[in-house]
Amino acid sequence: MQAEVINTGSELLLGLVTNTHLAYLAGELTPCGVSIARQVCVPDGPPIRQALETALQRADLVLTTGGLGPTSDDLTREAAAELLGLPLIPDEEILSGIRERFARRGLPLADRIARQAMVPAGTAVLPNPQGTAPGLYFPPSVLGGHRARHLFLLPGPPRELRPMFADHVLPKLRAVLPPSSLRERRIYRLSGIGESQVEERIGRQLEERGDLEVGYCARPSEVDFRLIGPPAILAETEVAIRAELGDWIYSDGDPLESVVVRLLGEKKQTVATAESCTGGSLAARITNVPGASEVFLAGYVTYANQAKERTLGLPAGLLATHGAVSEPVAAAMAEGARRVSGARYALSTTGIAGPGGGTESKPAGMVYLALASEGHPTVVRRCYFPLDRITFKHMTTSAALDLLRRRILELPLELGGGSASPRLG
Amino acid sequence: MQAEVINTGSELLLGLVTNTHLAYLAGELTPCGVSIARQVCVPDGPPIRQALETALQRADLVLTTGGLGPTSDDLTREAAAELLGLPLIPDEEILSGIRERFARRGLPLADRIARQAMVPAGTAVLPNPQGTAPGLYFPPSVLGGHRARHLFLLPGPPRELRPMFADHVLPKLRAVLPPSSLRERRIYRLSGIGESQVEERIGRQLEERGDLEVGYCARPSEVDFRLIGPPAILAETEVAIRAELGDWIYSDGDPLESVVVRLLGEKKQTVATAESCTGGSLAARITNVPGASEVFLAGYVTYANQAKERTLGLPAGLLATHGAVSEPVAAAMAEGARRVSGARYALSTTGIAGPGGGTESKPAGMVYLALASEGHPTVVRRCYFPLDRITFKHMTTSAALDLLRRRILELPLELGGGSASPRLG
Repeated sequence: MQAEVINTGSELLLGLVTNTHLAYLAGELTPCGVSIARQVCVPDGPPIRQALETALQRADLVLTTGGLGPTSDDLTREAAAELLGLPLIPDEEILSGIRERFARRGLPLADRIARQAMVPAGTAVLPNPQGTAPGLYFPPSVLGGHRARHLFLLPGPPRELRPMFADHVLPKLRAVLPPSSLRERRIYRLSGIGESQVEERIGRQLEERGDLEVGYCARPSEVDFRLIGPPAILAETEVAIRAELGDWIYSDGDPLESVVVRLLGEKKQTVATAESCTGGSLAARITNVPGASEVFLAGYVTYANQAKERTLGLPAGLLATHGAVSEPVAAAMAEGARRVSGARYALSTTGIAGPGGGTESKPAGMVYLALASEGHPTVVRRCYFPLDRITFKHMTTSAALDLLRRRILELPLELGGGSASPRLG
Repeated sequence: MQAEVINTGSELLLGLVTNTHLAYLAGELTPCGVSIARQVCVPDGPPIRQALETALQRADLVLTTGGLGPTSDDLTREAAAELLGLPLIPDEEILSGIRERFARRGLPLADRIARQAMVPAGTAVLPNPQGTAPGLYFPPSVLGGHRARHLFLLPGPPRELRPMFADHVLPKLRAVLPPSSLRERRIYRLSGIGESQVEERIGRQLEERGDLEVGYCARPSEVDFRLIGPPAILAETEVAIRAELGDWIYSDGDPLESVVVRLLGEKKQTVATAESCTGGSLAARITNVPGASEVFLAGYVTYANQAKERTLGLPAGLLATHGAVSEPVAAAMAEGARRVSGARYALSTTGIAGPGGGTESKPAGMVYLALASEGHPTVVRRCYFPLDRITFKHMTTSAALDLLRRRILELPLELGGGSASPRLG
């Protein structure tokens, strides 16, 4: 089943409000086997009618958001009724509900408000406990001549739309969807591999099957590899995907830091951090996860050299000999953080976030990260992320978290790009 | 001038990513006198061509986002070239840039990647320092027969699109827009005040003038107060706005952490942080600012109690007597961080981020922050942000940064919400 979404509201086109409707509706509809083929945002007013007309001819299901309120620019209800030739009839139940609401709050009932009680003949009212404007459902009987079998008019504010969708739209849809249309979405989140590598290793081959929709969403140092198709096919391809992408897959949705905190919690292990160039971002990502306090002991943001020596006990002369951005300093920082905190693992970062501070041999974007672990030699990895400061920090902390994930799971550490050189701890 | 925006990307229609492009582009275009008449989101693939065709006939300016990358579902460049009958020609400069990027990172260059260097004849390349896919500008000379005079193809990731838009799209547009449409946008960023207070103090009065567009964008503990209008009117209202909102205004665009780093740099002063509940986020925000290494000495993420005592030298018994979430501990953390790091200022946070860990007297969301300063008594402030974990951290770190901003500028510290109680250091 194909759906189209029409958003109305000048505040969206003026950029005053970010349109979160599409992401919400897609997240709810996709697992039901409904795919959104198109979304359009038009201003309040006449363009709504034209957008509705096109959408009803092109899709099986049409959903609109916004334009059901009391003000002069709320025209969706009228546009739909006019387009479909349905007279507007006052609905006594809605009217008395609105009256009661206003009376309770001691407000006079403006004529305008009463417009919201006008209902196109043959449609069903969707209650709105969060506001005055009810939603409307147009069944196949009033959509004659159009491809669409179902039209829903929903309110604009997310706090009104979402409960209405969950309580009244989804049940109606589930009742009419053919069970054969059931498609599922499966997401593999990968770290340390690029989208073109994913495509070459397995993506193209899956695409050529013809029964799966294959997609990629690349973020810095991460890829979401996405398949949509019949559940049986998805289960069948799972093995091949795991075989090809195995250790790079860190979750089916949770962010990397959540996976790491969960793994540490399961094994009752602890971690500490020593950060230079990432300036606290690594600790911040870990502590963004609820329950992090069970596994995260301490973080040391040793930005100045003196702080590296004093707080982490770096051997005298190490910084002078090798420079702060070096393999021995990364290792010593991780080992120092482990020693001072008493954690089982410690991660460190030292590099040049840029834009300034780079040299020919150590350009902005160069970074060393290290993992010190109980019972293992310290591992140092050199990476190069010549990007803006925020992205640099994100990629560096992702690489560090992935290193720890691989260590906890006892996976090979040298996978995932960059160079990893073992070093005695 | 009327614009249309076409977003492509299955991840948008699948609800995996919220579409923030419209809000961003509208925010940038509106002040230039360009209004967005329509926005549409279509999947990767053939629908792009149809959407392009319609938009080029209907609008003066068309902007697309997404579909410029290396994978098989990136088809925007090809769709536009085909529709306009323009041959694709390899661009040596782009190709060598991509080659260099991959070589530097020691990655193999897949054939697919080279597709990004294909450029439709007669178009101009928009550089993308943040990624491999360049943008493209189609001038009137290649759009013959369409209403549209300008077509821009922009990349999908916001961190690539936004700098490209600011550096390459806006200058091109400004050169062709009639000067009569010139309106400017002025933004006042405020910390520690609510949007309804801003509206009451000055916003409503400015709105009633009729020659200004007044807007508010509220974020946790911050408000952007936005005016759009003729430059002369904006200059005229500046004085009244400063008089009413004075000390709350921290910038005209820069984030709070940038303002604080700049102020510290100007005065050659330094800061350190001691964080419990914010887990490194405060240090991370400060070190997000280029040049932070000049003013930020060290951060201590003392999550575990032992780390608070060992690293910051909290007096024995203080934690046991008062509990970690208390005024004396917040003060001792800030003072300890200042002592250990040698910084002029130190900020501390200790609280309950939640969702777990709260008690009746210290519920989740309660937090103490402290500022220790050379030559001033330590100041402790108690706040209550009963919100999700990420928002809690953001509001807490904003309150801390604003406290430091006010101290550096010698403004009254008790403004801006929360309670501030002076305490001997």
